Amino acid sequence: MRLNTEQIEALDNRYRALFINALSGFKGANLIATCDDRKNTNLAIFTSVFHIGSMPPLLGMISRPHSVTRDTLENIVQTGHYTINHVNASIVQQSHQSSARYDKDISEFHATGLKEQWLDDFPVPFVQQSRIQLGMKLREQHQLEINNTVMIIGEIIYINIKDDVVHQDGYVDIERAGSIATSSLDSYHRTDMLTQLSYAKPDKLAEQLTHRKK
Amino acid sequence: MRLNTEQIEALDNRYRALFINALSGFKGANLIATCDDRKNTNLAIFTSVFHIGSMPPLLGMISRPHSVTRDTLENIVQTGHYTINHVNASIVQQSHQSSARYDKDISEFHATGLKEQWLDDFPVPFVQQSRIQLGMKLREQHQLEINNTVMIIGEIIYINIKDDVVHQDGYVDIERAGSIATSSLDSYHRTDMLTQLSYAKPDKLAEQLTHRKK
Repeated sequence: MRLNTEQIEALDNRYRALFINALSGFKGANLIATCDDRKNTNLAIFTSVFHIGSMPPLLGMISRPHSVTRDTLENIVQTGHYTINHVNASIVQQSHQSSARYDKDISEFHATGLKEQWLDDFPVPFVQQSRIQLGMKLREQHQLEINNTVMIIGEIIYINIKDDVVHQDGYVDIERAGSIATSSLDSYHRTDMLTQLSYAKPDKLAEQLTHRKK
Repeated sequence: MRLNTEQIEALDNRYRALFINALSGFKGANLIATCDDRKNTNLAIFTSVFHIGSMPPLLGMISRPHSVTRDTLENIVQTGHYTINHVNASIVQQSHQSSARYDKDISEFHATGLKEQWLDDFPVPFVQQSRIQLGMKLREQHQLEINNTVMIIGEIIYINIKDDVVHQDGYVDIERAGSIATSSLDSYHRTDMLTQLSYAKPDKLAEQLTHRKK
Protein backbone atom coordinates (compact mmCIF):
# COMPACT_ATOMS: atom_id res chain seq x y z
CA MET A 1 0.00 0.00 0.00
CA ARG A 2 1.48 3.32 -1.07
CA LEU A 3 -0.26 6.53 -0.03
CA ASN A 4 0.54 10.15 -0.79
CA THR A 5 -0.78 13.27 0.94
CA GLU A 6 -3.99 13.43 -1.07
CA GLN A 7 -4.75 9.78 -0.37
CA ILE A 8 -4.00 10.19 3.35
CA GLU A 9 -6.31 13.22 3.55
CA ALA A 10 -9.07 11.28 1.82
CA LEU A 11 -9.15 8.53 4.46
CA ASP A 12 -12.22 8.27 6.70
CA ASN A 13 -11.58 9.99 10.07
CA ARG A 14 -11.78 6.90 12.29
CA TYR A 15 -9.73 4.83 9.85
CA ARG A 16 -7.08 7.53 9.71
CA ALA A 17 -6.92 7.85 13.51
CA LEU A 18 -6.23 4.11 13.96
CA PHE A 19 -3.87 4.05 11.00
CA ILE A 20 -1.73 7.13 11.73
CA ASN A 21 -1.52 6.41 15.45
CA ALA A 22 0.25 3.12 14.61
CA LEU A 23 2.96 4.65 12.47
CA SER A 24 5.33 6.00 15.13
CA GLY A 25 5.93 2.40 16.27
CA PHE A 26 5.53 0.96 19.76
CA LYS A 27 4.83 3.37 22.57
CA GLY A 28 4.94 3.32 26.34
CA ALA A 29 1.69 3.20 28.30
CA ASN A 30 1.64 5.60 31.23
CA LEU A 31 -0.99 6.75 33.69
CA ILE A 32 -0.77 10.46 34.41
CA ALA A 33 -2.15 11.28 37.85
CA THR A 34 -2.93 14.84 38.91
CA CYS A 35 -5.05 16.76 41.40
CA ASP A 36 -6.33 20.29 41.76
CA ASP A 37 -5.59 22.58 44.69
CA ARG A 38 -8.38 20.91 46.68
CA LYS A 39 -6.88 17.45 46.10
CA ASN A 40 -9.61 16.36 43.71
CA THR A 41 -7.79 13.72 41.71
CA ASN A 42 -7.68 12.85 38.02
CA LEU A 43 -6.15 9.99 36.10
CA ALA A 44 -5.61 9.56 32.35
CA ILE A 45 -3.66 7.16 30.16
CA PHE A 46 -1.09 8.75 27.85
CA THR A 47 0.92 7.00 25.16
CA SER A 48 2.96 10.04 24.14
CA VAL A 49 5.51 10.27 26.94
CA PHE A 50 9.00 10.64 25.47
CA HIS A 51 12.56 11.05 26.72
CA ILE A 52 14.13 14.49 26.30
CA GLY A 53 17.28 14.26 28.39
CA SER A 54 18.86 12.59 31.39
CA MET A 55 20.68 15.58 32.92
CA PRO A 56 18.48 17.20 34.02
CA PRO A 57 16.08 14.23 33.77
CA LEU A 58 13.32 15.49 31.46
CA LEU A 59 10.29 13.85 29.87
CA GLY A 60 7.86 15.36 27.39
CA MET A 61 4.27 14.50 26.57
CA ILE A 62 1.57 15.72 24.23
CA SER A 63 -1.86 16.83 25.44
CA ARG A 64 -4.56 17.05 22.82
CA PRO A 65 -6.95 19.98 22.65
CA HIS A 66 -10.60 19.44 23.66
CA SER A 67 -9.94 15.91 24.86
CA VAL A 68 -10.47 14.25 28.21
CA THR A 69 -6.88 15.01 29.00
CA ARG A 70 -7.69 18.71 29.41
CA ASP A 71 -8.40 18.18 33.12
CA THR A 72 -4.94 16.71 33.37
CA LEU A 73 -3.40 19.80 31.82
CA GLU A 74 -5.41 22.20 34.00
CA ASN A 75 -4.38 20.35 37.14
CA ILE A 76 -0.72 20.30 36.13
CA VAL A 77 -0.74 24.04 35.60
CA GLN A 78 -2.60 24.57 38.89
CA THR A 79 -0.30 22.51 41.12
CA GLY A 80 2.89 22.48 39.03
CA HIS A 81 3.18 18.71 39.55
CA TYR A 82 2.01 15.38 38.17
CA THR A 83 3.02 11.74 38.37
CA ILE A 84 3.83 9.23 35.64
CA ASN A 85 3.01 5.61 36.45
CA HIS A 86 3.87 2.68 34.16
CA VAL A 87 0.93 0.54 33.09
CA ASN A 88 1.62 -3.15 33.68
CA ALA A 89 -0.18 -6.21 32.35
CA SER A 90 -2.40 -6.64 35.40
CA ILE A 91 -3.98 -3.16 35.14
CA VAL A 92 -4.37 -2.81 31.36
CA GLN A 93 -8.15 -2.79 31.30
CA GLN A 94 -8.53 -0.31 34.16
CA SER A 95 -5.88 1.92 32.62
CA HIS A 96 -7.60 1.90 29.22
CA GLN A 97 -10.92 2.67 30.94
CA SER A 98 -9.42 5.88 32.37
CA SER A 99 -9.73 7.35 28.87
CA ALA A 100 -13.56 7.42 29.09
CA ARG A 101 -15.14 10.87 29.38
CA TYR A 102 -16.32 10.82 32.98
CA ASP A 103 -18.10 13.82 34.46
CA LYS A 104 -15.75 16.35 35.93
CA ASP A 105 -16.76 15.54 39.53
CA ILE A 106 -15.88 11.85 39.16
CA SER A 107 -12.26 10.84 39.73
CA GLU A 108 -11.02 8.18 37.31
CA PHE A 109 -9.35 6.60 40.35
CA HIS A 110 -12.77 5.82 41.78
CA ALA A 111 -14.30 4.91 38.43
CA THR A 112 -11.60 2.42 37.46
CA GLY A 113 -10.55 0.91 40.77
CA LEU A 114 -6.97 2.11 40.44
CA LYS A 115 -5.79 3.28 43.86
CA GLU A 116 -4.33 6.60 44.91
CA GLN A 117 -1.02 6.35 46.74
CA TRP A 118 0.36 9.45 48.47
CA LEU A 119 4.11 9.13 48.99
CA ASP A 120 6.61 11.16 51.02
CA ASP A 121 4.59 14.39 50.96
CA PHE A 122 4.62 14.52 47.17
CA PRO A 123 1.76 16.95 46.34
CA VAL A 124 0.07 14.66 43.79
CA PRO A 125 -0.93 10.99 44.09
CA PHE A 126 0.75 8.02 42.44
CA VAL A 127 -1.00 4.88 41.19
CA GLN A 128 -0.52 2.21 43.83
CA GLN A 129 -0.72 -0.72 41.38
CA SER A 130 2.09 0.68 39.24
CA ARG A 131 5.62 -0.63 39.81
CA ILE A 132 7.49 2.31 38.28
CA GLN A 133 6.32 5.64 39.66
CA LEU A 134 7.78 9.03 38.74
CA GLY A 135 7.10 12.32 40.51
CA MET A 136 7.22 15.18 38.01
CA LYS A 137 7.62 18.94 38.24
CA LEU A 138 6.27 21.05 35.37
CA ARG A 139 9.12 22.88 33.66
CA GLU A 140 7.74 24.15 30.34
CA GLN A 141 4.62 24.04 28.23
CA HIS A 142 4.54 24.85 24.53
CA GLN A 143 1.46 25.32 22.42
CA LEU A 144 2.21 23.72 19.06
CA GLU A 145 0.60 26.10 16.59
CA ILE A 146 0.56 23.46 13.89
CA ASN A 147 -2.37 21.55 15.44
CA ASN A 148 -3.10 23.22 18.81
CA THR A 149 -1.73 20.39 20.90
CA VAL A 150 0.23 21.27 24.02
CA MET A 151 3.66 19.83 24.76
CA ILE A 152 4.36 19.51 28.45
CA ILE A 153 7.96 19.19 29.64
CA GLY A 154 8.51 17.95 33.16
CA GLU A 155 11.51 17.15 35.32
CA ILE A 156 11.67 13.84 37.17
CA ILE A 157 12.15 14.90 40.79
CA TYR A 158 11.11 11.68 42.52
CA ILE A 159 11.47 8.02 41.54
CA ASN A 160 9.93 4.99 43.25
CA ILE A 161 10.88 1.69 41.70
CA LYS A 162 11.41 -1.87 42.89
CA ASP A 163 15.09 -2.56 43.61
CA ASP A 164 15.02 -5.94 41.93
CA VAL A 165 14.52 -4.51 38.42
CA VAL A 166 17.49 -2.10 38.62
CA HIS A 167 20.83 -3.55 37.50
CA GLN A 168 24.28 -2.60 38.77
CA ASP A 169 25.00 -0.43 35.73
CA GLY A 170 21.75 1.54 35.99
CA TYR A 171 19.73 -0.43 33.41
CA VAL A 172 16.11 -0.77 34.50
CA ASP A 173 14.45 -4.00 33.39
CA ILE A 174 11.01 -2.56 32.66
CA GLU A 175 10.01 -5.85 31.02
CA ARG A 176 10.59 -7.65 34.32
CA ALA A 177 8.61 -4.88 36.04
CA GLY A 178 5.68 -5.92 33.84
CA SER A 179 5.51 -2.66 31.89
CA ILE A 180 3.77 -3.06 28.56
CA ALA A 181 3.98 -1.52 25.11
CA THR A 182 1.07 -0.09 23.11
CA SER A 183 0.36 0.41 19.44
CA SER A 184 -2.21 2.50 17.62
CA LEU A 185 -5.14 3.52 19.85
CA ASP A 186 -6.30 0.29 21.41
CA SER A 187 -3.64 -2.44 21.40
CA TYR A 188 -1.49 -3.57 24.30
CA HIS A 189 1.54 -5.85 24.00
CA ARG A 190 3.76 -7.80 26.36
CA THR A 191 7.44 -7.81 25.45
CA ASP A 192 10.14 -10.43 25.21
CA MET A 193 13.79 -9.38 25.29
CA LEU A 194 15.45 -9.95 21.94
CA THR A 195 18.94 -8.60 22.54
CA GLN A 196 20.99 -6.03 24.41
CA LEU A 197 23.86 -4.52 22.44
CA SER A 198 27.12 -2.86 23.44
CA TYR A 199 27.84 0.82 22.71
CA ALA A 200 28.36 1.06 18.94
CA LYS A 201 31.79 2.09 17.65
CA PRO A 202 32.87 2.65 14.02
CA ASP A 203 35.69 0.09 14.00
CA LYS A 204 33.80 -2.84 15.52
CA LEU A 205 30.30 -4.30 15.29
CA ALA A 206 28.21 -3.92 18.42
CA GLU A 207 28.07 -7.16 20.40
CA GLN A 208 25.42 -8.78 22.50
CA LEU A 209 25.76 -7.93 26.18
CA THR A 210 25.87 -11.06 28.28
CA HIS A 211 27.46 -9.80 31.46
CA ARG A 212 24.86 -7.37 32.79
CA LYS A 213 24.61 -7.98 36.53
CA LYS A 214 21.73 -7.59 38.92
CA MET B 1 14.43 2.31 45.63
CA ARG B 2 13.25 5.87 46.24
CA LEU B 3 15.28 8.74 44.83
CA ASN B 4 14.81 12.49 45.12
CA THR B 5 16.39 15.23 43.00
CA GLU B 6 19.62 15.38 44.98
CA GLN B 7 20.05 11.61 44.75
CA ILE B 8 19.30 11.60 41.01
CA GLU B 9 21.86 14.37 40.44
CA ALA B 10 24.47 12.44 42.42
CA LEU B 11 24.27 9.37 40.15
CA ASP B 12 27.29 8.54 37.99
CA ASN B 13 26.79 9.85 34.42
CA ARG B 14 26.71 6.49 32.62
CA TYR B 15 24.51 4.96 35.31
CA ARG B 16 22.10 7.89 35.06
CA ALA B 17 21.93 7.72 31.25
CA LEU B 18 20.92 4.03 31.29
CA PHE B 19 18.58 4.56 34.22
CA ILE B 20 16.72 7.70 33.10
CA ASN B 21 16.42 6.52 29.47
CA ALA B 22 14.38 3.54 30.73
CA LEU B 23 11.83 5.57 32.65
CA SER B 24 9.56 6.76 29.83
CA GLY B 25 8.65 3.11 29.14
CA PHE B 26 8.89 1.20 25.89
CA LYS B 27 9.80 3.17 22.77
CA GLY B 28 9.66 2.64 19.05
CA ALA B 29 12.89 1.98 17.15
CA ASN B 30 13.11 3.96 13.92
CA LEU B 31 15.82 4.55 11.36
CA ILE B 32 15.93 8.15 10.17
CA ALA B 33 17.36 8.39 6.65
CA THR B 34 18.44 11.70 5.15
CA CYS B 35 20.71 13.09 2.46
CA ASP B 36 22.30 16.41 1.67
CA ASP B 37 21.76 18.38 -1.56
CA ARG B 38 24.37 16.22 -3.30
CA LYS B 39 22.56 13.01 -2.28
CA ASN B 40 25.20 11.99 0.24
CA THR B 41 23.16 9.80 2.55
CA ASN B 42 23.01 9.44 6.31
CA LEU B 43 21.24 6.98 8.58
CA ALA B 44 20.67 7.10 12.34
CA ILE B 45 18.55 5.17 14.82
CA PHE B 46 16.13 7.27 16.90
CA THR B 47 14.01 6.07 19.78
CA SER B 48 12.25 9.38 20.40
CA VAL B 49 9.70 9.48 17.55
CA PHE B 50 6.26 10.33 18.95
CA HIS B 51 2.75 10.89 17.64
CA ILE B 52 1.48 14.50 17.60
CA GLY B 53 -1.68 14.26 15.53
CA SER B 54 -3.41 12.36 12.77
CA MET B 55 -4.98 15.28 10.85
CA PRO B 56 -2.68 16.54 9.57
CA PRO B 57 -0.53 13.44 10.22
CA LEU B 58 2.35 14.73 12.36
CA LEU B 59 5.24 13.05 14.17
CA GLY B 60 7.81 14.65 16.45
CA MET B 61 11.32 13.58 17.38
CA ILE B 62 14.12 14.86 19.58
CA SER B 63 17.62 15.49 18.26
CA ARG B 64 20.35 15.81 20.83
CA PRO B 65 22.98 18.52 20.63
CA HIS B 66 26.55 17.54 19.69
CA SER B 67 25.59 13.97 18.98
CA VAL B 68 25.97 11.84 15.87
CA THR B 69 22.45 12.79 14.98
CA ARG B 70 23.57 16.35 14.12
CA ASP B 71 24.22 15.26 10.52
CA THR B 72 20.64 14.09 10.43
CA LEU B 73 19.38 17.48 11.55
CA GLU B 74 21.59 19.39 9.11
CA ASN B 75 20.37 17.25 6.22
CA ILE B 76 16.73 17.65 7.21
CA VAL B 77 17.10 21.42 7.24
CA GLN B 78 18.98 21.35 3.92
CA THR B 79 16.49 19.24 1.95
CA GLY B 80 13.32 19.76 4.01
CA HIS B 81 12.70 16.00 3.99
CA TYR B 82 13.57 12.77 5.80
CA THR B 83 12.24 9.24 6.05
CA ILE B 84 11.23 7.19 9.09
CA ASN B 85 11.70 3.42 8.75
CA HIS B 86 10.62 0.91 11.40
CA VAL B 87 13.37 -1.34 12.74
CA ASN B 88 12.35 -4.99 12.61
CA ALA B 89 13.88 -8.00 14.36
CA SER B 90 16.04 -9.01 11.39
CA ILE B 91 17.92 -5.69 11.21
CA VAL B 92 18.36 -4.88 14.91
CA GLN B 93 22.13 -5.20 15.00
CA GLN B 94 22.71 -3.15 11.84
CA SER B 95 20.27 -0.52 13.06
CA HIS B 96 22.00 -0.24 16.44
CA GLN B 97 25.35 -0.01 14.66
CA SER B 98 24.15 3.11 12.82
CA SER B 99 24.62 5.00 16.09
CA ALA B 100 28.44 4.69 15.90
CA ARG B 101 30.32 7.94 15.19
CA TYR B 102 31.45 7.31 11.63
CA ASP B 103 33.50 9.93 9.77
CA LYS B 104 31.36 12.47 7.97
CA ASP B 105 32.28 11.10 4.51
CA ILE B 106 31.06 7.58 5.34
CA SER B 107 27.37 6.82 4.91
CA GLU B 108 25.92 4.61 7.63
CA PHE B 109 24.11 2.81 4.81
CA HIS B 110 27.45 1.55 3.51
CA ALA B 111 28.90 0.97 6.95
CA THR B 112 26.00 -1.13 8.23
CA GLY B 113 24.79 -2.97 5.13
CA LEU B 114 21.34 -1.43 5.28
CA LYS B 115 20.25 -0.60 1.74
CA GLU B 116 19.07 2.68 0.27
CA GLN B 117 15.75 2.49 -1.53
CA TRP B 118 14.64 5.44 -3.66
CA LEU B 119 10.86 5.41 -4.16
CA ASP B 120 8.54 7.38 -6.44
CA ASP B 121 10.84 10.40 -6.79
CA PHE B 122 10.83 11.00 -3.05
CA PRO B 123 13.90 13.25 -2.51
CA VAL B 124 15.40 11.18 0.31
CA PRO B 125 16.09 7.42 0.49
CA PHE B 126 14.16 4.85 2.50
CA VAL B 127 15.63 1.74 4.16
CA GLN B 128 14.92 -1.19 1.88
CA GLN B 129 14.85 -3.78 4.70
CA SER B 130 12.19 -1.88 6.62
CA ARG B 131 8.54 -2.93 6.20
CA ILE B 132 6.95 0.32 7.34
CA GLN B 133 8.40 3.33 5.54
CA LEU B 134 7.27 6.94 6.01
CA GLY B 135 8.22 9.89 3.83
CA MET B 136 8.37 13.06 5.94
CA LYS B 137 8.32 16.77 5.22
CA LEU B 138 9.85 19.11 7.81
CA ARG B 139 7.18 21.39 9.25
CA GLU B 140 8.70 22.95 12.39
CA GLN B 141 11.80 22.84 14.51
CA HIS B 142 11.97 24.09 18.07
CA GLN B 143 15.09 24.55 20.12
CA LEU B 144 14.22 23.48 23.67
CA GLU B 145 16.06 26.02 25.81
CA ILE B 146 15.87 23.76 28.82
CA ASN B 147 18.62 21.42 27.57
CA ASN B 148 19.48 22.55 24.01
CA THR B 149 17.84 19.61 22.30
CA VAL B 150 15.95 20.25 19.08
CA MET B 151 12.40 19.04 18.52
CA ILE B 152 11.66 18.30 14.88
CA ILE B 153 8.04 18.15 13.72
CA GLY B 154 7.35 16.53 10.39
CA GLU B 155 4.28 15.73 8.34
CA ILE B 156 3.82 12.24 6.92
CA ILE B 157 3.42 12.86 3.19
CA TYR B 158 4.15 9.35 1.89
CA ILE B 159 3.47 5.89 3.33
CA ASN B 160 4.72 2.55 2.04
CA ILE B 161 3.50 -0.43 4.00
CA LYS B 162 2.65 -4.06 3.28
CA ASP B 163 -1.08 -4.52 2.64
CA ASP B 164 -1.28 -7.64 4.75
CA VAL B 165 -0.64 -5.82 8.02
CA VAL B 166 -3.38 -3.21 7.51
CA HIS B 167 -6.84 -4.19 8.79
CA GLN B 168 -10.20 -3.09 7.39
CA ASP B 169 -10.71 -0.49 10.12
CA GLY B 170 -7.28 1.12 9.62
CA TYR B 171 -5.44 -0.67 12.44
CA VAL B 172 -1.87 -1.46 11.42
CA ASP B 173 -0.50 -4.66 12.96
CA ILE B 174 3.06 -3.44 13.51
CA GLU B 175 3.78 -6.57 15.57
CA ARG B 176 3.03 -8.72 12.53
CA ALA B 177 5.23 -6.39 10.46
CA GLY B 178 8.07 -7.40 12.80
CA SER B 179 8.53 -3.94 14.31
CA ILE B 180 10.24 -4.05 17.68
CA ALA B 181 10.21 -2.06 20.90
CA THR B 182 13.23 -0.66 22.72
CA SER B 183 13.99 0.24 26.30
CA SER B 184 16.76 2.32 27.85
CA LEU B 185 19.76 2.78 25.52
CA ASP B 186 20.61 -0.71 24.39
CA SER B 187 17.73 -3.17 24.74
CA TYR B 188 15.45 -4.47 22.00
CA HIS B 189 12.25 -6.42 22.58
CA ARG B 190 9.83 -8.46 20.49
CA THR B 191 6.19 -8.02 21.37
CA ASP B 192 3.28 -10.34 21.93
CA MET B 193 -0.28 -8.99 21.68
CA LEU B 194 -1.96 -8.99 25.08
CA THR B 195 -5.31 -7.40 24.27
CA GLN B 196 -7.15 -4.93 22.07
CA LEU B 197 -9.86 -2.93 23.80
CA SER B 198 -12.96 -1.12 22.58
CA TYR B 199 -13.34 2.65 22.83
CA ALA B 200 -13.81 3.45 26.53
CA LYS B 201 -17.13 4.94 27.65
CA PRO B 202 -18.14 6.04 31.16
CA ASP B 203 -21.17 3.77 31.50
CA LYS B 204 -19.57 0.52 30.40
CA LEU B 205 -16.21 -1.22 30.83
CA ALA B 206 -14.12 -1.42 27.68
CA GLU B 207 -14.27 -4.88 26.15
CA GLN B 208 -11.78 -7.01 24.29
CA LEU B 209 -12.06 -6.61 20.53
CA THR B 210 -12.45 -9.93 18.85
CA HIS B 211 -13.96 -8.94 15.52
CA ARG B 212 -11.15 -6.96 13.92
CA LYS B 213 -10.96 -8.07 10.30
CA LYS B 214 -8.08 -8.26 7.92
